[in-house]
Amino acid sequence: MPVSLNTADADFARQFDAFLAARREEEADVSQTVARIIADVRERGDGALAELTKRFDEIDLAAAGIRVSDAEMATAVAEVAPETMDALKLARDRIEAFHRRQLPSDDRYTDEQGAELGCKWTAVDSAGLYVPGGQASYPSSVLMNAVPAKVAGVPRVAMVVPTPAGVMNPLVFAAAQLAGVDEVYRIGGAQAVAALAFGTETVQPVAKIVGPGNAYVAEAKRQVFGVVGIDSIAGPSEVLIVADKDNRPDWIAADLLAQAEHDAAAQSILITDDGELAEAVSREVEKQLATLPRGNIAGASWERFGALITVAGLDEAPDLVNRLAPEHLELATADPEALMKDIRNAGAIFLGHYTPEAVGDYVAGPNHVLPTSRTARFSSGLSVLDFMKRSSILRLSADALRALGPAAMTLADAEGLDAHARSIEMRLNR
Amino acid sequence: MPVSLNTADADFARQFDAFLAARREEEADVSQTVARIIADVRERGDGALAELTKRFDEIDLAAAGIRVSDAEMATAVAEVAPETMDALKLARDRIEAFHRRQLPSDDRYTDEQGAELGCKWTAVDSAGLYVPGGQASYPSSVLMNAVPAKVAGVPRVAMVVPTPAGVMNPLVFAAAQLAGVDEVYRIGGAQAVAALAFGTETVQPVAKIVGPGNAYVAEAKRQVFGVVGIDSIAGPSEVLIVADKDNRPDWIAADLLAQAEHDAAAQSILITDDGELAEAVSREVEKQLATLPRGNIAGASWERFGALITVAGLDEAPDLVNRLAPEHLELATADPEALMKDIRNAGAIFLGHYTPEAVGDYVAGPNHVLPTSRTARFSSGLSVLDFMKRSSILRLSADALRALGPAAMTLADAEGLDAHARSIEMRLNR
Repeated sequence: MPVSLNTADADFARQFDAFLAARREEEADVSQTVARIIADVRERGDGALAELTKRFDEIDLAAAGIRVSDAEMATAVAEVAPETMDALKLARDRIEAFHRRQLPSDDRYTDEQGAELGCKWTAVDSAGLYVPGGQASYPSSVLMNAVPAKVAGVPRVAMVVPTPAGVMNPLVFAAAQLAGVDEVYRIGGAQAVAALAFGTETVQPVAKIVGPGNAYVAEAKRQVFGVVGIDSIAGPSEVLIVADKDNRPDWIAADLLAQAEHDAAAQSILITDDGELAEAVSREVEKQLATLPRGNIAGASWERFGALITVAGLDEAPDLVNRLAPEHLELATADPEALMKDIRNAGAIFLGHYTPEAVGDYVAGPNHVLPTSRTARFSSGLSVLDFMKRSSILRLSADALRALGPAAMTLADAEGLDAHARSIEMRLNR
Repeated sequence: MPVSLNTADADFARQFDAFLAARREEEADVSQTVARIIADVRERGDGALAELTKRFDEIDLAAAGIRVSDAEMATAVAEVAPETMDALKLARDRIEAFHRRQLPSDDRYTDEQGAELGCKWTAVDSAGLYVPGGQASYPSSVLMNAVPAKVAGVPRVAMVVPTPAGVMNPLVFAAAQLAGVDEVYRIGGAQAVAALAFGTETVQPVAKIVGPGNAYVAEAKRQVFGVVGIDSIAGPSEVLIVADKDNRPDWIAADLLAQAEHDAAAQSILITDDGELAEAVSREVEKQLATLPRGNIAGASWERFGALITVAGLDEAPDLVNRLAPEHLELATADPEALMKDIRNAGAIFLGHYTPEAVGDYVAGPNHVLPTSRTARFSSGLSVLDFMKRSSILRLSADALRALGPAAMTLADAEGLDAHARSIEMRLNR
């Protein structure tokens, strides 16, 4: 049974706190194993990659090659149905158009003291994209990670994807090609992350690693952070739907299940001011589950982590939303814009009745790599900025230094940093 | 002796690689100690804070109070010399003016398919600022961390600062007051980070923790990451100066020493195309060291980590700079703007002969919290964006969903996510 809460209950505050605090995933401690794998790849390079890939993926890299050749790419891509290719292209174009608007502007100005100030943005030199193999090998994720990197202007995007027992997902290669990925390697796990971070004879190191992965990949990213940049570590996915009474229960149920089918640890939550809608949605969920291919996964997610929260009025919703800080937020109400004004913590917001979250997973344009597990309180979805960095710029004339230098010297003296003060003083006394 | 390299040497590439790879700090493994402290604060709240603060800072919080009172703040601030207060105010105003320009704009537009797209930016609900006690207790850092938070619109900024043996730095309190810090607590170490992340009876939890600290503080930030956001973990500071022959050796030497005096693990590097300048600077460093109050620290840094790199021409410099990815970069050349065009990896760039890095530490306006240890390859200095997050926005009409839905369904089918496809299909078949 999903949790059922009602803000009218005397005990609601405590129940909601407990709901907020509940963890949805066990954390396996794989840090030692991962540390050994990383050390091995650092020390032995390609040799370690070959051995680990043989063990975990049952592939002989000496025969297959670490890098996927252009010919292999072409062969795989040729297998993709034209309709799917068109859909991928539409997705690529729309993701590109949306992300282009995120490109930041350099700034340069001179202030009243004659100080020239500003900043300039540059792309990272190279980025590595981790793509999981097997079931979670999603072409949409390739686009969502690689397109922003290319829009940012990253000259070199390298992709790693394990091909367990030699199985390659042609859609992943098609997406990589469409997104402009420059290099593809058939490696995965912590060893692939290590190769991207430290380099081997075949794999040149990158400046930043992004993309989802299992516990080993996540831990490897944590361990190489600092040597390279990483994106956020994603937890299981979640959706929160705020719905008023004028909703079709089957649509809402379908959206809850679209989230739940990702993973048994996914979470789907409905907040409504209409108790009858909550009940009708609950019945619809059960009905749709019966015919859903991934019904076992979606059912497990709904049973364990689903929640129906009844509020006295929709004005109670924003505070609950902000505390839940959902990855995906659907506002299926008569005036979703009004409601959105009070929303501060949400990765992506979907407005109205014709904006199911699933369309945002694929072709809408905004990124589907979003903050999970309440981290939308302090972080954002993946963007072009994640592949760029900013240098501040300062240029003082002798006069500007004369205007600002004495105050800087006062503070340097106050902090006991004499060499700081001297470096200014010498120039003033010229 | 500082390292001396010359690009004309046959062995330069290998020597430079070794120089790049050299670590400047031992990493103490304090993870277990920190984990215990965090668990203790989570479990026992204020009680644990009192006990740990008694042990580490020799303060009785039961008597002193965890929170610094307004009266104490006022008393401390009254001790600050008017000249210092004026310098802090100038710094505050200039930091604020520079950071205001970083405020991002919301975006909203409708594309050709009738999809409404966009994003909105919001500040984090609360931020915690760690300020070290003792020698490294710098008012300038308080301004550099707190002012951007307030410019971002963070309603609640809480500061923690240990006061070992009851010693408070009035300048730190003055800076906090000028920056608009809302709450100040006399706690430090991993226990203060734990209190900010998880909350206690007295300290409400925050959404993001920023600010420098020792190995325990850095490890505590790593461990609470995910529960709260954190800024980057800073390593020892560094400066790289690119200078042509038309420079005063004493000025360059002073700038190298201003960096070196921070910390024996700091690093100062000179790249020049003039061997005579390199020698003259080297002599000036020794001369100035003799009279520098923090000469021991600066001397140790210069001896162990300083470097003089001679290049055949300044056109060789940008590639070396980009590989070193310095926190601070001074371009003391005839045409620094031309040189800057090829610089990609640097935290802050200082142009010309009258822009010593030290002025940027205090009053110039740009942030002095910058990426260290070559992380400027993938990260940026602290900015207003570090205290904000972005929600993407999507709103489809029935027609727009009709235009985009089928492609999304095709991709959902290709990924085997039927509930995703269904949630769209239902709406199309209405």
